[in-house]
Amino acid sequence: MNAEILTVGTELLLGDILNTNAQYLATELARLGIPVHYQSTVGDNPERLRRTLAQALERSDIILTSGGLGPTKDDLTKETVCSLLEQPLELHGPSLEWMRGYFARTGRTMSANNEKQAMLPAGCTVFANAVGTAPGCAIRKDGKHILMLPGPPRELVPMFETGAKAYLRQFTQGTIVSRNLRVFGIGESTLESYVNDLVDLANPSCALYAKEGEVLIRVTAMAPDAGRAGALLEPLLAQLRERLGAYIYGEEADSLEQVVVGKLRRHGKTIATAESCTGGLVAEKITRVPGASEVFSYGVCTYANEAKTRALGVSARLLAEQGAVCERVAMQMAAGIRERAGADIGVGVTGIAGPGGGTAEKPVGLVYIALADRERVWARKLLLGRGGAEREYVRNLTSLHLLDLVRRYLSAPPDGLEGGMPVKELFADA
Amino acid sequence: MNAEILTVGTELLLGDILNTNAQYLATELARLGIPVHYQSTVGDNPERLRRTLAQALERSDIILTSGGLGPTKDDLTKETVCSLLEQPLELHGPSLEWMRGYFARTGRTMSANNEKQAMLPAGCTVFANAVGTAPGCAIRKDGKHILMLPGPPRELVPMFETGAKAYLRQFTQGTIVSRNLRVFGIGESTLESYVNDLVDLANPSCALYAKEGEVLIRVTAMAPDAGRAGALLEPLLAQLRERLGAYIYGEEADSLEQVVVGKLRRHGKTIATAESCTGGLVAEKITRVPGASEVFSYGVCTYANEAKTRALGVSARLLAEQGAVCERVAMQMAAGIRERAGADIGVGVTGIAGPGGGTAEKPVGLVYIALADRERVWARKLLLGRGGAEREYVRNLTSLHLLDLVRRYLSAPPDGLEGGMPVKELFADA
Repeated sequence: MNAEILTVGTELLLGDILNTNAQYLATELARLGIPVHYQSTVGDNPERLRRTLAQALERSDIILTSGGLGPTKDDLTKETVCSLLEQPLELHGPSLEWMRGYFARTGRTMSANNEKQAMLPAGCTVFANAVGTAPGCAIRKDGKHILMLPGPPRELVPMFETGAKAYLRQFTQGTIVSRNLRVFGIGESTLESYVNDLVDLANPSCALYAKEGEVLIRVTAMAPDAGRAGALLEPLLAQLRERLGAYIYGEEADSLEQVVVGKLRRHGKTIATAESCTGGLVAEKITRVPGASEVFSYGVCTYANEAKTRALGVSARLLAEQGAVCERVAMQMAAGIRERAGADIGVGVTGIAGPGGGTAEKPVGLVYIALADRERVWARKLLLGRGGAEREYVRNLTSLHLLDLVRRYLSAPPDGLEGGMPVKELFADA
Repeated sequence: MNAEILTVGTELLLGDILNTNAQYLATELARLGIPVHYQSTVGDNPERLRRTLAQALERSDIILTSGGLGPTKDDLTKETVCSLLEQPLELHGPSLEWMRGYFARTGRTMSANNEKQAMLPAGCTVFANAVGTAPGCAIRKDGKHILMLPGPPRELVPMFETGAKAYLRQFTQGTIVSRNLRVFGIGESTLESYVNDLVDLANPSCALYAKEGEVLIRVTAMAPDAGRAGALLEPLLAQLRERLGAYIYGEEADSLEQVVVGKLRRHGKTIATAESCTGGLVAEKITRVPGASEVFSYGVCTYANEAKTRALGVSARLLAEQGAVCERVAMQMAAGIRERAGADIGVGVTGIAGPGGGTAEKPVGLVYIALADRERVWARKLLLGRGGAEREYVRNLTSLHLLDLVRRYLSAPPDGLEGGMPVKELFADA
């Protein structure tokens, strides 16, 4: 049995609202192991709605609709479904009672056209609406099932949870289990060349989703139960972990900052941040994580050179001679904030986020990041420019590279942090 | 001519990502006056993609696709369109050159499968990709038009703006002109009661879109040309401005931080930030704005009490007696950073972002924000809790309230900033 999602509403066609219902229903159907092959959206137009429904009945076994259950004359989903299936609409007493009570409770008077919402297809399964007026329902004909749900997400979600989900369980042969591997520091196409052969597998299957700077690898298996599906996944996950090694920064829903804060907490280490072109984004990401206060106490955003010198002790001569965007400045920022914050680790970042400020030698997207501990300081040069106004892109990718550098520093053994410079030599020639 | 939007990607069918492209394209087509009757979504499945395309060609004149232009073997949009239209794919030299340059600029090596992205339908109109690798294109056959755009929104949006929009203009009869008013500090339903009568108008029309803490009012008119459409808008805009006054913080695409940075530049004033619970978000937002360096030179994220005292001079006794979350601490943070940064304005924020750390007297969502200039300091108490884990919500809303306080301070005359406290009294009892 496969399913199709049909969202109804002119406001969707006009782009006035984002189609969160389609995403919600798609996620829930995937969890139930019911494959979805199509999503469609039509406006409040009976003719086109009818045509889309007819087509959905041809190509899919289960159709979930959202929207068009309201009291207005634009709301035509039930009417259209019933005329298509040649099924009469009947007044559903309990729903009418519920609505009357609903209006009484909310101290409003029920208008006549609300009664239309209590008209339901003969012989349907009714889904009560705990937070609104329109009930939903499921109707079956010739082995096909149409589930009609309301448009407002705050009504659709609880109705799905309390009614539609149980109805759909009868169709789930297997359970789909997915695991996510999160990868940073390698492009999608390079990554694919590493895992090319694994992407063709059917069950378990493996798919790559590129996100800014990151790639999500989703491994999915289907089996009669979750245990067996999980067992199917393990060998593939093991292969991916072996091939990608340290490029995998986390699994499941972890963000890079969650991984870094988690490692800092486990190691009992603290971090301090000194930022220029990222403008506080690194500190902001670290403190997004609940409990960050255990590992982060102080960060600065030194946008001006003078602030870099005063707040971090960056050599004024160095700034005058080399400019703010150079490796040594990033290193001095990292060591400077570490010492002033009394933290175990300090990170520094300086670069050109754009759109302005780029030159031939120092183009937009040139960024230096550095990490300092008590003894040593390491730096990385990044070239993130790609043409176009990319300020936010450069800032975000820089913050990810810096967080990844911390993650690798905290790995056992530290990954890709050979060399580095003794901190005591850092300010020597300043 | 009517259009249809076809978004391609298994991640959409699985609900892994929200279909923001469909909303963006729908909004833009509405602005161009091109009616959209259908939206469809299919996965990376050539057979179903082919069927959906064939059907779209039957019922629509213009088809916009997004997704499936990537380098991997799942990316099949161009291949499927071309086989359907019996059109060969040809290597497009300029696109290949651009890609080579792109990889060179970003210091990466181009893998062989990227070349696939430079294969385009014979005789198509090419849309350059300013921020990524895959070019888009438009192909015409038998009076039908298929525009193929990339999946990542950060690539799709600029490509639409710079390429596809101009291509689509040939199909627009009337012109739709929209203006946006941006409102902060008033809830959607309260706002609606202010403008109730105006929301029912047809042409010009007026719609409200609530965003976290903000409301966007979009006023739209359709006319044979932009001039006449604009003229239709003016009286309605004037009414809205008169009714909402200082609640309107900006127009068109301006964000609150853009408005604030713009005002600071015009007034020749500088700002410094001292943040606790927002973790650097205020500085990060200010520095998102190109040219922020003219008005912002220094900010701190003092997460720990000890850092508040050392970096800002917040009274240790005050912190010990009142705790970090109180009005006086926010005021001392604002005055402290202003003085240390040598800025005209200092802002401070301290509060409980949650999910933990709340108490009966100081619940999650209790935040104090403050603004200091050379003479005086003003504070505001915010109660942003709504129950549930809301860390990001509290942090974001706090940053908006603080930016709005700066905006009102910089308005002529300053808005809602009576009273306040002389800075010299601020540290008196410390």
